[in-house]
Amino acid sequence: MLSITRLDIEDAYRLIAAARAKAVEIGVPMCIAVTDESGNLIAFERMDGGKITSIALAIDKSFTAVGIKKGTHILGQVNQPGEAAHGIASALGGRMVVVAGGLPVFNNDEVVGGVGVSSGSPAQDLEVAKAAVQAF
Amino acid sequence: MLSITRLDIEDAYRLIAAARAKAVEIGVPMCIAVTDESGNLIAFERMDGGKITSIALAIDKSFTAVGIKKGTHILGQVNQPGEAAHGIASALGGRMVVVAGGLPVFNNDEVVGGVGVSSGSPAQDLEVAKAAVQAF
Amino acid sequence: MLSITRLDIEDAYRLIAAARAKAVEIGVPMCIAVTDESGNLIAFERMDGGKITSIALAIDKSFTAVGIKKGTHILGQVNQPGEAAHGIASALGGRMVVVAGGLPVFNNDEVVGGVGVSSGSPAQDLEVAKAAVQAF
Amino acid sequence: MLSITRLDIEDAYRLIAAARAKAVEIGVPMCIAVTDESGNLIAFERMDGGKITSIALAIDKSFTAVGIKKGTHILGQVNQPGEAAHGIASALGGRMVVVAGGLPVFNNDEVVGGVGVSSGSPAQDLEVAKAAVQAF
Repeated sequence: MLSITRLDIEDAYRLIAAARAKAVEIGVPMCIAVTDESGNLIAFERMDGGKITSIALAIDKSFTAVGIKKGTHILGQVNQPGEAAHGIASALGGRMVVVAGGLPVFNNDEVVGGVGVSSGSPAQDLEVAKAAVQAF
Repeated sequence: MLSITRLDIEDAYRLIAAARAKAVEIGVPMCIAVTDESGNLIAFERMDGGKITSIALAIDKSFTAVGIKKGTHILGQVNQPGEAAHGIASALGGRMVVVAGGLPVFNNDEVVGGVGVSSGSPAQDLEVAKAAVQAF
Repeated sequence: MLSITRLDIEDAYRLIAAARAKAVEIGVPMCIAVTDESGNLIAFERMDGGKITSIALAIDKSFTAVGIKKGTHILGQVNQPGEAAHGIASALGGRMVVVAGGLPVFNNDEVVGGVGVSSGSPAQDLEVAKAAVQAF
Repeated sequence: MLSITRLDIEDAYRLIAAARAKAVEIGVPMCIAVTDESGNLIAFERMDGGKITSIALAIDKSFTAVGIKKGTHILGQVNQPGEAAHGIASALGGRMVVVAGGLPVFNNDEVVGGVGVSSGSPAQDLEVAKAAVQAF
């Protein structure tokens, strides 16, 4: 049997609160998603003004990050032409997101969940996701 | 131009808080979703123990309720064998949910959003959704 | 080679105008779709107040009607429990609509397109679709 | 509560009429879609000769434009190899369109809807979409 460590709903809200605080600081209303280590959504917030196309993007960024156990921007690098994973972006019906803003959340070197942020530039999305993970 | 009134993120969290309180009271951890009047997700919470199959169900219940401007249980009645809308359940790629637990939120007779609840029995899901709407 | 007769865009707008007139008459803002005999959308109108869940439903009703060369309510009858096509509703990813409101448009006993109406009761949707076809 | 301004059906037909006029002028029959600010379809026209693969493309271009609050050609630039959003094209089940022809419609600096055009070259699609927005 496996023993799994996983974010609970309070952890998820702490991540969202930290992301929201950074989003407010940089002045970009964001969609913020937190999934568990299995890729299933725990909590989601679309700040007033967050983009409708960013709802699924934020969720899928978090899903992708816990899946690959890396930030989605890392996947973006190997998705570039000439790289080994070029084209991976369209896998899983398009849920494999290769744009910055998704980060796994680690606990003792284990992935326990992830956070996905979308509505700003890729750099802003990543900055907000980082703020969430660092506050954790 | 049309003038639309829509739930904001604070409204969404008030609905989720009221739903959560009722879910705790009846002892059933729930997935709770709040969408705007256009069916786009504003906020989501999976309480610890909420069912993974209920994530999309809760979201789609809220989506359906704002779409039909009625509770999903009403659609369930006309989806029964022999009724005029029997088979509607599989429409929209299956996003049309005909099980109790989705309710529209009204403001001055206008739909401004919806709430969707899933993880319990249909009766429990509806009870929790009602508690959310009534507290609003 | 086959020679196909097909609704043109002016035909489509005549169907929509007739549907809209009946919708206004009965006081139910509708989603109205017209597809060609191949099931491809020609024109669509969501009257102010038409339901968002009815956008794809109206399109898919028209698609279904030209496909089966019958009204969608006929398919609804054979989709009932005990009938030969029970369960057909979920075919084609749910695009097979078995609720009244989709009608084929005939020209010399040939299907040349279809109309799909949604937002009211199944009976209202069918009444509006019939008004469109009869005016044609 | 939020207060939202949205295109109504008359606005949608004005956009379509202006797009059609430009399409006729340049001699390219187009698919033209108008969505509201939430990405839901209001009206659609496939001019006689418009491409069947452009039906969903026109709708999704308008959806994307209202989501990102920019023209789809802008997203196309950052989707290029080496750019930060390379690979975004396949997000949202492929509904994220990165080809020119989708534009948001603004009213007092607020997105109130969008227009999507497809069937010509990207440059022609954009020219027609621009004509629609400018006539508005």
